[in-house]
Amino acid sequence: MQPIKWEICAQDGEARCGLLKTRRGVIETPVFMPVGTLGTVKGTRFETLESAELDARIILGNTYHLWLRPGAETIRECGGLHRFIGWERALLTDSGGFQVWSLGALRKISEEGTEFRSHIDGSLRFLSPEVSMQVQAALGSDIVMAFDECAPGKAEHEVAHASMLLTSRWAERSRKSFDALQKEVWSLESGVESQRLKSELHLTPDSRLRTPDSRLQTPDSELSGAQALFGIVQGAAHLDLRRESLSRTVEIGFDGYAIGGLSVGEEKSVMYGVVEEIAPLMPEERPRYLMGVGTPEDLIECVARGVDMFDCVLPTRNGRTGQAFTSRGRLNVKNAQWARDMRPLDENCSCSVCRRHERAYLRHLYITGEMLASILLTHHNLAFFLDTMRRVRQAIRSGDFTRFRREFLEGVNSGIA
Amino acid sequence: MQPIKWEICAQDGEARCGLLKTRRGVIETPVFMPVGTLGTVKGTRFETLESAELDARIILGNTYHLWLRPGAETIRECGGLHRFIGWERALLTDSGGFQVWSLGALRKISEEGTEFRSHIDGSLRFLSPEVSMQVQAALGSDIVMAFDECAPGKAEHEVAHASMLLTSRWAERSRKSFDALQKEVWSLESGVESQRLKSELHLTPDSRLRTPDSRLQTPDSELSGAQALFGIVQGAAHLDLRRESLSRTVEIGFDGYAIGGLSVGEEKSVMYGVVEEIAPLMPEERPRYLMGVGTPEDLIECVARGVDMFDCVLPTRNGRTGQAFTSRGRLNVKNAQWARDMRPLDENCSCSVCRRHERAYLRHLYITGEMLASILLTHHNLAFFLDTMRRVRQAIRSGDFTRFRREFLEGVNSGIA
Repeated sequence: MQPIKWEICAQDGEARCGLLKTRRGVIETPVFMPVGTLGTVKGTRFETLESAELDARIILGNTYHLWLRPGAETIRECGGLHRFIGWERALLTDSGGFQVWSLGALRKISEEGTEFRSHIDGSLRFLSPEVSMQVQAALGSDIVMAFDECAPGKAEHEVAHASMLLTSRWAERSRKSFDALQKEVWSLESGVESQRLKSELHLTPDSRLRTPDSRLQTPDSELSGAQALFGIVQGAAHLDLRRESLSRTVEIGFDGYAIGGLSVGEEKSVMYGVVEEIAPLMPEERPRYLMGVGTPEDLIECVARGVDMFDCVLPTRNGRTGQAFTSRGRLNVKNAQWARDMRPLDENCSCSVCRRHERAYLRHLYITGEMLASILLTHHNLAFFLDTMRRVRQAIRSGDFTRFRREFLEGVNSGIA
Repeated sequence: MQPIKWEICAQDGEARCGLLKTRRGVIETPVFMPVGTLGTVKGTRFETLESAELDARIILGNTYHLWLRPGAETIRECGGLHRFIGWERALLTDSGGFQVWSLGALRKISEEGTEFRSHIDGSLRFLSPEVSMQVQAALGSDIVMAFDECAPGKAEHEVAHASMLLTSRWAERSRKSFDALQKEVWSLESGVESQRLKSELHLTPDSRLRTPDSRLQTPDSELSGAQALFGIVQGAAHLDLRRESLSRTVEIGFDGYAIGGLSVGEEKSVMYGVVEEIAPLMPEERPRYLMGVGTPEDLIECVARGVDMFDCVLPTRNGRTGQAFTSRGRLNVKNAQWARDMRPLDENCSCSVCRRHERAYLRHLYITGEMLASILLTHHNLAFFLDTMRRVRQAIRSGDFTRFRREFLEGVNSGIA
């Protein structure tokens, strides 16, 4: 019995299509996971994420942010992150490692963990593999990430080596702590405590614990019901360190494997080089997750190199700053040239924003600071990313991925008219 | 042939139910119109406004704001406000009179009109009955408001009298200018120019000019297809002035009549007093519109006094500042007491926000500054206002309005638990 189950259902070169089965539904891979930092994919209602148009099967939550606000105990008391936010589909939480690393001068890394000052109130906090696993257990995400240390993209070999070894020791501690917590959590879940909680929350015994969408149902008997834990490969741009990190991570043993520490300022060719080298060496029978990547082109290039899962803030963050991703590249909605342009953002897009609204109106909303600009651009961008992945899967299944990849890249490089 | 058609279909005391037929669909009255200042009901997608849950049949646009940004010419070139914003149902535009009046020190009122400085760039602008009618013709709203002058709620008799007489002269000029423009617009609409525009906009001859929702269809033959013009009754708190204003306005003749200049700082009893005196004197066969009002209690109290139409920013604006309207009064979502409260905003509400989300999460969203807080609170508030009006209509139709009114007021005064 496993917490999740993943199996390949089609392959075209290194690119693979798979089915990732979780208690919260089936996820087709390659998959793009919208980022829901604070328990919300910014500007997007959950009904919209669930709609046939977007049909996001899994979203990401940030342990660091949720731990600070509203706090792990609050979320635990409210019945876990799914229940707290009202999302019944799958959730992946990161470990907080990358976020505290990003704090730069505000954090101090030791063998034990990372001491840092909260970006909210400046209070001193401490995050370690054990704390991260405890917080993620309280959140109750379907996929938990091991606590890792990220080296700068251009780290020297020696620095990157030490960092990678620390990540490896933290991975062992993450695994150990996670396993102990799972026993605790699941005895709790099945026990009296769980019944009391459900009764307090005015839940029927299985309410909101089962997705209402029959397309997403997985027979429970296949799965253990526990959380899954993914390990993370580090090593900056050094391929020997990446290989060593992979072998150490696989030795510990995880339900899936991630490549971390990319898309942090290095050259694009470095990222593609690491993925090309490492992805094919990763266990074939486990999902491969490239963290924090990337543009639509990056997704396709890395699917071509064997990656199954992605997450990135680009569609949501850039949507809020007025940038639309389209089949002909990026469009900046602020530009004066759109002031009376009655064409949709993307003439090849059939999302509800492109069917209803035109550039002139979207520009007006952006220029006047209207919230609807962010809502609509975020929606279009998510639709574009999710639809691109749908087309990627279709192309792989029909053995047509090479042509799809070429035509897609030609399109995005052809420029906005 | 009239531009719109309104008929009473039920009455209970002074309270009336009616059907307002427009080329853009049928509107059941009493009706609440959400405010879409800049061509967007803030934080709300049009699909949501159209959904069975909200089913807003008519929204309001602000002439002042749209005139400044993106400008009347831009909207005209984009095919009018409906086409520009992607809303096929009915639109009412105010005249800009109230907004420029609200600018206070930034405006100077003369017989000719109002000179003011734009709140955007400080540029000097001039708004008059003629300009307002031209802008509203360019916007192409279904209901146009006459250009009026608003007196302060506590204006002395002499000041209010002069102001009311000015409004009356402006009403005559509005009517004259409007009638001339209608001839122009409708010869344009039916002519070659219209075909060229539609072809430029890649529209089929009748695309986006007809609502797709069969519930809203009105046989075109009943209506002239022109815009409708409403007159506005002013006179501050002085009932004799209000009566004189009404008689002057009715003498000019309009498709509907509005009470303006209330809810501008006067005591609530003054507002109710004016409405109670004036509404029953207004032409029985025309819709009566109380501008800029109000709280749910105000809506019900003024329906009881014979008003048919309302607009107000309260549900949207207060939603953005964390206030929810509920069947037990107002709830401030910021309050610490909700931090772990797993009850919906309103336990008697069946809107999609109350069905899915709880106070703890909504508070978290608000505290962390997440856009979704505004989106969800606005949605709940609009649902509450629109559903309240639905229940008001039902109560009138079943002759049960007195009981409904009493129970509703008891509810909102009972306090949040």
